[in-house]
Amino acid sequence: MIIAVDAAGGDYFPKNPVEGALDALSEDSNLQILFVGPQDIITNELKNHSYDSDRVQIVDAPEIIGMEESPASAVKNKRNSSITIGLSLHKAGKCDGFVSAGNTGALLAASTFILGKLQGVSRPTIASYYPTLKGFRLLVDAGANLEIKPEMAVQFAKMGQIFCKHIMGIEQPKIGLLNVGEEDEKGTEITKSIHAELKKVEGFVGNIEGRDIFPAKADIFISDGMVGNILLKFGESIPDALMKMVGSAIQKSDLEANQIQSIQTVLKSAFSPFNYERVGGLPFLGVNGVSIVGHGGSSALAIKNMIKSAVSCIESDINGKIVASLN
Amino acid sequence: MIIAVDAAGGDYFPKNPVEGALDALSEDSNLQILFVGPQDIITNELKNHSYDSDRVQIVDAPEIIGMEESPASAVKNKRNSSITIGLSLHKAGKCDGFVSAGNTGALLAASTFILGKLQGVSRPTIASYYPTLKGFRLLVDAGANLEIKPEMAVQFAKMGQIFCKHIMGIEQPKIGLLNVGEEDEKGTEITKSIHAELKKVEGFVGNIEGRDIFPAKADIFISDGMVGNILLKFGESIPDALMKMVGSAIQKSDLEANQIQSIQTVLKSAFSPFNYERVGGLPFLGVNGVSIVGHGGSSALAIKNMIKSAVSCIESDINGKIVASLN
Repeated sequence: MIIAVDAAGGDYFPKNPVEGALDALSEDSNLQILFVGPQDIITNELKNHSYDSDRVQIVDAPEIIGMEESPASAVKNKRNSSITIGLSLHKAGKCDGFVSAGNTGALLAASTFILGKLQGVSRPTIASYYPTLKGFRLLVDAGANLEIKPEMAVQFAKMGQIFCKHIMGIEQPKIGLLNVGEEDEKGTEITKSIHAELKKVEGFVGNIEGRDIFPAKADIFISDGMVGNILLKFGESIPDALMKMVGSAIQKSDLEANQIQSIQTVLKSAFSPFNYERVGGLPFLGVNGVSIVGHGGSSALAIKNMIKSAVSCIESDINGKIVASLN
Repeated sequence: MIIAVDAAGGDYFPKNPVEGALDALSEDSNLQILFVGPQDIITNELKNHSYDSDRVQIVDAPEIIGMEESPASAVKNKRNSSITIGLSLHKAGKCDGFVSAGNTGALLAASTFILGKLQGVSRPTIASYYPTLKGFRLLVDAGANLEIKPEMAVQFAKMGQIFCKHIMGIEQPKIGLLNVGEEDEKGTEITKSIHAELKKVEGFVGNIEGRDIFPAKADIFISDGMVGNILLKFGESIPDALMKMVGSAIQKSDLEANQIQSIQTVLKSAFSPFNYERVGGLPFLGVNGVSIVGHGGSSALAIKNMIKSAVSCIESDINGKIVASLN
């Protein structure tokens, strides 16, 4: 099992990708890591670590795609970036999957362009883990397709079900369509058409509203990428905002230091459902390969879990199951 | 100042509307209340209270529109509902504003149909208060218009600015367009067209993302009603979900009763920014009158604040200012 890791992706490269990958390596004796990025940077960073050098390779990719760079021009013009080279190695069968905390747009564009689409898939999608009272559930689409058509929604639902079942361990995942009301006739014309097609998919529980997300009235929340992306980023901002709200409430209170300590301990535990580090990135579903993208701020732990997620996708043959489900 | 109050609206009528209205009455000696709803129900409820009967009238409206009823057919078929009669009284100049915690869709349809639109307004909109780290800010549209056009977004922005400034006390309110990224060229074709038109409006700060809501990077969040409604209902669900998360964290901890007590006190204070009771309902902006709708579960306090909000809208001549701004 060889996983290529983008050593030049995210806000904290090469440190976090290298550290996370070496942690994954030490926990899985079947794993090999292929670092992709500027060779000197990787070599320097590796000097800070001890590891089994027989299971680590470096592939030089001197160009770096910035986090805010325009995806289309980055993919077109930077042929020697870690993203392009890493995905090309995957396409050529030199590795089994690719993991990056780099520019999401560039990763989506390059994954679709280089790996191609799975048979039966109109458009690949980015799914995202979403915190709920039942643990993480799946939001699809999280920003790859800002407008969606009924057949795309059906494919997202079926791909999401396979991912939920085999990677997230949710048996018989329920599908809900995010909408402004529960009744079948709610929403725009396109939402109503999507609803009508989703009704044919097993596990569809109908429209769900914003208030149904936290109670996880469905396991898979289907939306277009506009709604999904705004919700994803809003959700990510909740813990920090709440800690600030709690912080100013504490300041106004007359609590003693040990009481404040115990509040912080409880809240840290309470907000742990929001901890994205544990879940290992967002999968691109529908591409002919395994490509996992992480948050730009991914920690070493997040990178390690992204690699584990890639390994699970490969071992469970997620893509084979998707093709079987769609065709 | 006469405010008509829907005594048959919301999940807790007639109790909460009557109690809230009488509280408002006792706090404002210039106020008169006109209760609209089934006469016997109102008369019975009023027996539980002492109040200045010279300032209270009842208008019989025997039909009740259910909270889940289809708005179009309810407005068409129930001509003797509190909503239809209350808004008709307002249109006829028998009162200065109408306040209801009833069926939002029916209220929007009836407000637009009966009161008509202000000059220069393409489509009236529901704005919603939204909790942020700086206090409540304004989300427009919160579900009235699931698809919006550039000129509508511009009108929403200008109406929102007037509301923010004169009712919410925010000087020079900043306008942001909810989008998937900050750059001008982000989003769908329609989002890009909206962005281009909003650029001409003073106070526009550009695209904002989901993560920019809590820090209140703008004071007015412009979106279509699909995004707005999902965000609104999701936001409303946050305090309850968090209290559950905190509750299970407390159960897992070994805290003593007094420590748990102090945590609950701090959290109650910390989550107070989410307390919609304080803000008094959602204004319909763009209708030729003052129509305020509250959450179905509105408490008496929420109803009282809705009435105060209606009074503020009238005293500040919000509608006159909107017409001046748009024409």
